[in-house]
Amino acid sequence: MARLVMKFGGTSVGDLDRIRNVARHVKREVDAGHKVAVVVSAMAGETNKLVDYCRAISPLHDAREYDAVVATGEQVSTGLLALTLQSMGIDARSWQGWQIPIRTDGAHGAARITGIEGDRLIERIEGGQVAVVAGFQGIAPDGRISTLGRGGSDTSAVAIAAAIHADRCDIYTDVDGVYTTDPRIVSAARRLPRVSYEEMLEMASLGAKVLQVRSVELAMIHGVRTFVRSSFDDPEAIRAAGNQPVGTLICDEDEIVEQQIVTGIAYSKDEAQISIRRVADRPGVAASVFGPMAQANINVDMIVQNISPDGSTTDITFTVPQTEYDRAISVLEDNRDVIGYSSIEGAQDVVKVSVIGVGMRSHAGVAAAAFRALSDKGINIRAITTSEIKVSVLIDAAYAELAVRALHSVYELDKATSA
Amino acid sequence: MARLVMKFGGTSVGDLDRIRNVARHVKREVDAGHKVAVVVSAMAGETNKLVDYCRAISPLHDAREYDAVVATGEQVSTGLLALTLQSMGIDARSWQGWQIPIRTDGAHGAARITGIEGDRLIERIEGGQVAVVAGFQGIAPDGRISTLGRGGSDTSAVAIAAAIHADRCDIYTDVDGVYTTDPRIVSAARRLPRVSYEEMLEMASLGAKVLQVRSVELAMIHGVRTFVRSSFDDPEAIRAAGNQPVGTLICDEDEIVEQQIVTGIAYSKDEAQISIRRVADRPGVAASVFGPMAQANINVDMIVQNISPDGSTTDITFTVPQTEYDRAISVLEDNRDVIGYSSIEGAQDVVKVSVIGVGMRSHAGVAAAAFRALSDKGINIRAITTSEIKVSVLIDAAYAELAVRALHSVYELDKATSA
Repeated sequence: MARLVMKFGGTSVGDLDRIRNVARHVKREVDAGHKVAVVVSAMAGETNKLVDYCRAISPLHDAREYDAVVATGEQVSTGLLALTLQSMGIDARSWQGWQIPIRTDGAHGAARITGIEGDRLIERIEGGQVAVVAGFQGIAPDGRISTLGRGGSDTSAVAIAAAIHADRCDIYTDVDGVYTTDPRIVSAARRLPRVSYEEMLEMASLGAKVLQVRSVELAMIHGVRTFVRSSFDDPEAIRAAGNQPVGTLICDEDEIVEQQIVTGIAYSKDEAQISIRRVADRPGVAASVFGPMAQANINVDMIVQNISPDGSTTDITFTVPQTEYDRAISVLEDNRDVIGYSSIEGAQDVVKVSVIGVGMRSHAGVAAAAFRALSDKGINIRAITTSEIKVSVLIDAAYAELAVRALHSVYELDKATSA
Repeated sequence: MARLVMKFGGTSVGDLDRIRNVARHVKREVDAGHKVAVVVSAMAGETNKLVDYCRAISPLHDAREYDAVVATGEQVSTGLLALTLQSMGIDARSWQGWQIPIRTDGAHGAARITGIEGDRLIERIEGGQVAVVAGFQGIAPDGRISTLGRGGSDTSAVAIAAAIHADRCDIYTDVDGVYTTDPRIVSAARRLPRVSYEEMLEMASLGAKVLQVRSVELAMIHGVRTFVRSSFDDPEAIRAAGNQPVGTLICDEDEIVEQQIVTGIAYSKDEAQISIRRVADRPGVAASVFGPMAQANINVDMIVQNISPDGSTTDITFTVPQTEYDRAISVLEDNRDVIGYSSIEGAQDVVKVSVIGVGMRSHAGVAAAAFRALSDKGINIRAITTSEIKVSVLIDAAYAELAVRALHSVYELDKATSA
């Protein structure tokens, strides 16, 4: 008997039939004796409709009112799921962010959870009542509804799991787990039975799109064992097979017995490269470039600055989201006098491909193998960044699939290993 | 400078264009220096959609979850109206029932307002901020969202007006006031400049459909001057005409200088008649009939019991809503042994037509004039009930329009009077 959080996204609660399927998954766990809190998103399409309303009224709308409007999507789906569970004879009750309460900071529209009072929820679910909790929202210090920003329901689920000391947080999604890479690109991609928090964090931020980055961070901080699984699996089939979860467990490194050196290959297409030529090689020049970027709220990702070839000037290369490319260029042009450079070059047809694995901490040669594999395929590397558990390269977009396949193969990720 | 509550129904906020029109009405009052709270319903169609969801899940759904789901309709429209007002440069903020709070009893799905804390609202609107309040909802003693039942936004508006001591509560609707009778039946029907609370109460409960009965009750109890006016009037035209409201003021009798004897003719088509033949004429027989009706939650309206013709048995006639007719009959049949009667007769094609006016308290002959007018047209009266300010007759549905026209004419309601 365990305490579980089950999270279902917008597609999983997209209509009443799908909500009924979600309820069957919940019933399966309840019948197995587990104590359950469910976190749900808004029905697919609803949030977009509400966001469109707000945007149509004014592009620069008040975030407090935006929050009040869009948070209704989850309120509806919690109520409908609670009703559906009740119709199956399961005691259930819906809870909005302000009722629990799920406290957030005051950044309306993109709030962060600051604390959840879990005691009453624990009491309820231990008493046998399923708690159906609205994802994506909380209550801000001003007493008004806040939302966590798009996709925030994963984060809600993990935060609820931490608050009620859940044994596991199951994220039901449209894929059945985390793969060594995108199976649409590499057919031999394998589902990973376990991934460490750190690896998942890199994968999430590099575009694996299975989980929200913030939710993985929270899971790591609070040690929430998070399980990615498919909401399309048939509840009765799972029940018949002994109610064993199938998917990928995101957990502490120590829980992963047979650690691979490289766990997966991720890629991100939403990248644009900007190079500033011949900036003065003096203290403060990086600040003069990235200060204005931060002020303009442009998220800068890879930053590469090499040593000066001539002792007086150098080149700085960095990437920004493709949607911010034009804005980033104009910020640099506006600040030309302050920064001082000869020219700006840019490329929008670029992708970032990354090799991820906690094992590379203790293994030399992982990066070298990547560079060799890419070189063998004639792929030019535009920029490189590395972290303890990751090597990322920026390459021309045309080579994205070729690079992912080459890297997937060079680290022998195609080969089946025992789970 | 006055303190105003403005209430707009679902049709008035049915899409973003209409919400913009509502905002223009609000701006008109703000520009005139008034302090304003606005109460809105859900966008037309939204509540039905949400109710349909709940019904599709289970016909016997939990009222608490139903409330959580359907209350989102008003939450969306408050947020969108606040955003629209802001986009016109007006300081505005949305408020849900639980935020104010609007306290209700625990009858989820059909709750009654028990109290509103008006101080913070007064502070806000006196500070120049328009308060946009969600109608139709509050918070129950269990800390959960409650709804007032369909059409409850009128009641919310009047209750808010009472709580903030508003000078006037303007109910914007799709008609431009209260008429002497239905203008679709009598083209000579006139708009009444003023109607007393008591008269409006009779008209509302008799099917004039302009205002919710409960809202008129509340207005009467708290002395809220309530003004019925059209939301389709052009805000700019009203502004150009000196911002004078056009419609019908519902107010205390004393405020109506030129009191008519009869104010209006109302009718209600949703009636069914049931007659129980030859029930024992003994104490407790009425209780044996209407006790089971109340238990089955069937609303009984007119009740007529005459003196016994033979000293031992009598006939009882009463009306129920047409939708409850079949259920009422089966309740009577189930209780035949307890009640004791020879037969049941019923008629579903009946209407109730009523003559209303506080003036009839001090004028004899009002009822007699009605009976004569109907008799002149060859209309048979099936049952009669009267109150201090009302005479109601039950007649065959086929004669409804004829009866309304005859009565409207006999009391000279066709003739113009000075407002």
